Amino acid sequence: MLFQIKILGNNSAIPAHDRNQTAQLLQLDNQYVLIDCGEGTQIQLSRQNIKPGRIKTVLISHLHGDHYFGLIGLISTMHLFHRKNALTIFAPPELEKILDLQLQASETRLSFELKFIPLCHEGIKEIYKEEQFTIKAFPLEHGIKCYGFLIIENPKQWRINKDVLPEDMLIQEIVILKNGKNVLTEDGSIKYALEDYTLPPRPMRSYAYCSDTRYDEEIVSYIHGVDLLYHEATFADEMEGRAELTHHSTATQAAKIAKMAQVKKLLLGHYSTRYKDPTPLLHEAKTIFEESYLSYEGETIHLTE
Amino acid sequence: MLFQIKILGNNSAIPAHDRNQTAQLLQLDNQYVLIDCGEGTQIQLSRQNIKPGRIKTVLISHLHGDHYFGLIGLISTMHLFHRKNALTIFAPPELEKILDLQLQASETRLSFELKFIPLCHEGIKEIYKEEQFTIKAFPLEHGIKCYGFLIIENPKQWRINKDVLPEDMLIQEIVILKNGKNVLTEDGSIKYALEDYTLPPRPMRSYAYCSDTRYDEEIVSYIHGVDLLYHEATFADEMEGRAELTHHSTATQAAKIAKMAQVKKLLLGHYSTRYKDPTPLLHEAKTIFEESYLSYEGETIHLTE
Repeated sequence: MLFQIKILGNNSAIPAHDRNQTAQLLQLDNQYVLIDCGEGTQIQLSRQNIKPGRIKTVLISHLHGDHYFGLIGLISTMHLFHRKNALTIFAPPELEKILDLQLQASETRLSFELKFIPLCHEGIKEIYKEEQFTIKAFPLEHGIKCYGFLIIENPKQWRINKDVLPEDMLIQEIVILKNGKNVLTEDGSIKYALEDYTLPPRPMRSYAYCSDTRYDEEIVSYIHGVDLLYHEATFADEMEGRAELTHHSTATQAAKIAKMAQVKKLLLGHYSTRYKDPTPLLHEAKTIFEESYLSYEGETIHLTE
Repeated sequence: MLFQIKILGNNSAIPAHDRNQTAQLLQLDNQYVLIDCGEGTQIQLSRQNIKPGRIKTVLISHLHGDHYFGLIGLISTMHLFHRKNALTIFAPPELEKILDLQLQASETRLSFELKFIPLCHEGIKEIYKEEQFTIKAFPLEHGIKCYGFLIIENPKQWRINKDVLPEDMLIQEIVILKNGKNVLTEDGSIKYALEDYTLPPRPMRSYAYCSDTRYDEEIVSYIHGVDLLYHEATFADEMEGRAELTHHSTATQAAKIAKMAQVKKLLLGHYSTRYKDPTPLLHEAKTIFEESYLSYEGETIHLTE
């Protein structure tokens, strides 16, 4: 399965320094999931030649404008393009009324169904499941109701080792092996032992999105061991007091969470406008967690198998 | 007085072909008035190096998203910049509730006062008056409630002809002449005749904004003789049926209105996305009204005295 993350915006609060507000597009095989949707996200999608109609699901972390003001415009554009397929939106409950009022004011009856699923649970919860992946949401500490998202591949099949495959093995026997079981004879003895004919399933890749949040060790158990953690890093260390006050994190704090959660890689973003060049944030993070990276608008990150 | 119009966006419905959705910035001496505010308007302002804090008044013609989805983001940015001065918004009444809900959802208490003035009158009405200019609003025919705006300089003073000014003329006598009256002696006879010492006031410049609207001769009396008429021209002639259906105008129809209203110049905009190059719209308009011009994003039009 293709598992990639495209950064559509990574600035905090306002668009600045040619950086848009927060939005990310996940491509999971042939499915698009949009995470957050700051103002101008539809323009960012257009720049990347991505048709809005391909987005099936939208996850909105919280209702600060830099994370959702672009959603109503995106929905309107989908309508103008005569979208037919339903669009599922996961978001804090207040968003539904806001969208409804805006559609009413323009007397718009959408060409497609808007499935609104309010997020209002405690702890981590599975909110969406597809054949190949599952999405979970968990609370972040950000002053107002806010959720992080965990996207995990579903368990995979065992891989047939073609080098040792007997020519007379039946298709139904291959299916049994792929599902991780021995192939048995009628009397119950082993005909083909799983470990002799297969390689173990590839690991399930996973991505965690944590924006916006203050430093909060509660999330460590939710995101433990993920391949890639996107954690907001609004401020440098010297602004730790301001980070606390505004319910945001420093790059060092993001790195501490990454280290505690034993993730493979950390991706930083949601830079304060005061950092025209966010490189100092990277340096700070790397002193704690070497596998830290800056997110850049327009880049695509592949999670390889 | 400086009287200029900056085009921040001129595409209809969606952003396309590097054209943003509708927004215009009027500079009237040292005052900024924003007319409509499509998504991304704050980015357009930033590109033009215009600080949002300088905008004192916002006019929203109607509640189709391409004319107002950028407003809440602009307001949020003003708040983040700790704006102190009140912002006055004229718009259809439903917008107030939409803005309120969005501010509530983010638990934002604005750093400045938002004065919301609902537009819901018939005919033409004065809605705003400053020392140097007056704004009037009048209904447009667009399916939902929609207003056009007329911005007119206030009557000007007579100009003192310095070439013939007697050295012993008193300041209070100059003031009388500037106000268009003869200076009289105590016995009521003329001491200084107005026409001998003055030049007539410069004409009052005026700008009319008509977007969005179907072809509607009702507006001709409201905009008669203006220096510049911005009239939407969403479609070319061949799409007249679609224009009628969607309550929009063709370039030819815009030119007919300009001709009937005897305006000095016509500015076309709100181009349909189907026109990557809107030049054919200009050609059509010019066959009816020679002084027709295309609006270009980023350009500034000066109304000279």
